[in-house]
Amino acid sequence: GYFPYVARLSGLEHVKLHASDNREELERAREALNTAAEGRQVLMLSSGDPGVFAMASAVFEVLDHAQPEEQARWAAVDIEVLPGITAMLAASARLGAPLGHDFCTINLSDNLKPASVIERRIQLAAQADFAMAFYNPCSKSRPQGFVRALNVLIEECEPERLICFASNVSRPDETLRVCQLQQVTPDMADMRTVVIVGNSLTRQVGKHVYTPRSYGVQTHA
Amino acid sequence: GYFPYVARLSGLEHVKLHASDNREELERAREALNTAAEGRQVLMLSSGDPGVFAMASAVFEVLDHAQPEEQARWAAVDIEVLPGITAMLAASARLGAPLGHDFCTINLSDNLKPASVIERRIQLAAQADFAMAFYNPCSKSRPQGFVRALNVLIEECEPERLICFASNVSRPDETLRVCQLQQVTPDMADMRTVVIVGNSLTRQVGKHVYTPRSYGVQTHA
Repeated sequence: GYFPYVARLSGLEHVKLHASDNREELERAREALNTAAEGRQVLMLSSGDPGVFAMASAVFEVLDHAQPEEQARWAAVDIEVLPGITAMLAASARLGAPLGHDFCTINLSDNLKPASVIERRIQLAAQADFAMAFYNPCSKSRPQGFVRALNVLIEECEPERLICFASNVSRPDETLRVCQLQQVTPDMADMRTVVIVGNSLTRQVGKHVYTPRSYGVQTHA
Repeated sequence: GYFPYVARLSGLEHVKLHASDNREELERAREALNTAAEGRQVLMLSSGDPGVFAMASAVFEVLDHAQPEEQARWAAVDIEVLPGITAMLAASARLGAPLGHDFCTINLSDNLKPASVIERRIQLAAQADFAMAFYNPCSKSRPQGFVRALNVLIEECEPERLICFASNVSRPDETLRVCQLQQVTPDMADMRTVVIVGNSLTRQVGKHVYTPRSYGVQTHA
């Protein structure tokens, strides 16, 4: 797994740990497949859910692009994906229920796709009035990710739209912040933040944020 | 909780169970708030994640629309939402990693929103090339939900688009099915099915389905 995730493990002294860096996902997956092909039990570690912007796709990509000798070696490897609680669901629960109606999940990193695709997706998602969860809003090497998204939101959404920032959810340094789009500044998001954008009906009640289940119909007297 | 969810509980003989029917969510939430206001500990039961098309929003809706005397009664009730593994993540893990890139989550039920909103969202999501997870595709009282969605997909997507059907995931009667859009028939989905629509790059490798992490860039030699 990724260095900081492996560093959080404890009680696994009987297990051989293999830690590697960010952006080395394909090499990590290849090493895991090779080790499993030797007959060992291998766990690829992700945080949250491995199927959401995490290692599961990387493993299947490597399998899919295998050279013939790798295909032969990996043919008997049995892969099982174990689901988990992905960051947006952990954040949503702490905030209330901002994802209680139709929503989109978008990775703002342009490491693996063009920034124009991200901007277009946010624009269409806003036009569909989806709530949105943004992963990897920005980092030191990608300072512009969240700024670009914010510019699209400002173009497409009303200034009062609720935007939620959740960092380090479930850890001692957890922080939650809710504000209107017109109050958002780019420094509110960093690489440890999940950003949740409400839809046009998302509201605050007390300290919680929720998106109503109904849309375009009257349900409360 | 909803009758069939409460029926699955065991080992809770010391707890008073309150089961109610589908579409009685607001009454159930009101009863829970009233019981909590009497000083009892109350658990509202959902399957999957309570924040995704489940009870969390219903509770906050009732709070938000409280009459003044209810507001006074419920003021001291402390609400905590506990996240869970929502159906699309359980299904995705069993299938491989079909949600490994940007995706949308759409409830196809038109009980609480107009069918036209659902169709427009699917259309825009397809134009953004999101993968999609459909909840509540249809039921006996809403036989047309999945048919309408399918018609939009046929209009917007290529005939080879991969569509996954997952029912009763993690239970003994679990069924998984993957086919191309051109092979899909309306009877493939019922009220217990989560439908996952791939994006234009979603592929099969062996028995698994995955959506590549990258989009519009070359990452494999």
